[in-house]
Amino acid sequence: MIIIQLNQRQQKIIEIVKENQPITSENIASMLNVTRATLRSDLAILTMTGILDARPKVGYFYTGVNQINLLGNDIKEKKVEDMMGMPVVVKKDVSLYDVIVEMFLSDVGSIFIIDDQENLCGVVSRKDLLKATIGGLDINKMPIGMIMTRTPNVVTVKREDSIVLAARKIIEHEIDSIPVVDMDDEHNVTKVIGRISKTNITKLFLEIAGE
Amino acid sequence: MIIIQLNQRQQKIIEIVKENQPITSENIASMLNVTRATLRSDLAILTMTGILDARPKVGYFYTGVNQINLLGNDIKEKKVEDMMGMPVVVKKDVSLYDVIVEMFLSDVGSIFIIDDQENLCGVVSRKDLLKATIGGLDINKMPIGMIMTRTPNVVTVKREDSIVLAARKIIEHEIDSIPVVDMDDEHNVTKVIGRISKTNITKLFLEIAGE
Repeated sequence: MIIIQLNQRQQKIIEIVKENQPITSENIASMLNVTRATLRSDLAILTMTGILDARPKVGYFYTGVNQINLLGNDIKEKKVEDMMGMPVVVKKDVSLYDVIVEMFLSDVGSIFIIDDQENLCGVVSRKDLLKATIGGLDINKMPIGMIMTRTPNVVTVKREDSIVLAARKIIEHEIDSIPVVDMDDEHNVTKVIGRISKTNITKLFLEIAGE
Repeated sequence: MIIIQLNQRQQKIIEIVKENQPITSENIASMLNVTRATLRSDLAILTMTGILDARPKVGYFYTGVNQINLLGNDIKEKKVEDMMGMPVVVKKDVSLYDVIVEMFLSDVGSIFIIDDQENLCGVVSRKDLLKATIGGLDINKMPIGMIMTRTPNVVTVKREDSIVLAARKIIEHEIDSIPVVDMDDEHNVTKVIGRISKTNITKLFLEIAGE
């Protein structure tokens, strides 16, 4: 992915084309008091990015393209498996108290719950646990399976999904992290193999920003 | 900000220049079996992005520039005030229980605590509250001021700071959200005017990805 900043002249060209389309490169050049040769690379960039459209013998049009949609493939093709962290899993008969302790020890915001066959059967967040602790439940006795969000209401992604899909699911479902699963529908198997959190996405954002 | 995907020929040009630098456009053209005119806009884009450097009468060089660092100004110049959400604030003498209720009602992960002059004096997260509820504290009586992280240990940003700075502070300090403050050091005033969370950053990531 290459990200470039348009220079002032390129931005002026866009304004001129917006107001005067269709307009020939000769006319753009005369409005800017420069030669056509000077404009050549600017126009190449503006047409290559899809901001302007050039029609032979007619001139340049502004396509009104949403600039942000010109994103290169690198971000869109970034896979869940390239960024996922280790999942923290506990069995569904573990007590709320022990799950909370595990949450603090592993310093995660969500814990994934597995059944006796080690298949994903639920998820709990800090929010779920906080609600349970003030709800007067006996956190030492109650198993986590009683309060977890259970499958099929658990949102998941697969290792080959894009990070963008994971981020969209996180936002749409208002969750902090999402389990990455290996599924084998035929044998009714759903293994948790990773997690993607808003922290992963925030780190990726910093990476994109060149930090 | 404009993000473009290099086409195959541009990628080939980069490879050729890497291996043969300095190399003239004539020689690149002959290696690709095309005319110099064909290459003109490709070379314009590659030099404009800083991937190649052109020296008159010598030829093209590969600059080895880190592509990700070519990020346009739009993301880097995106300000905290362009994206911040409403802060949720409570006074420091409010009970833990009432803070937890407020946290659920407003559905945020962090609450900012103010003193009698309505200046920021602390912050509490879901994690802090969960720890307090299982710690045997009397959440109905204990004021939030007893368990909050207090200033000056509270990390803040200002409205004119960049989103990138806010994201970096969130990651460095391992927090979920950061209060945006208006400070007047002379009068010892620190008002909370907003918040930036990992959710804001994740939404911005989706926007960058063209979602």
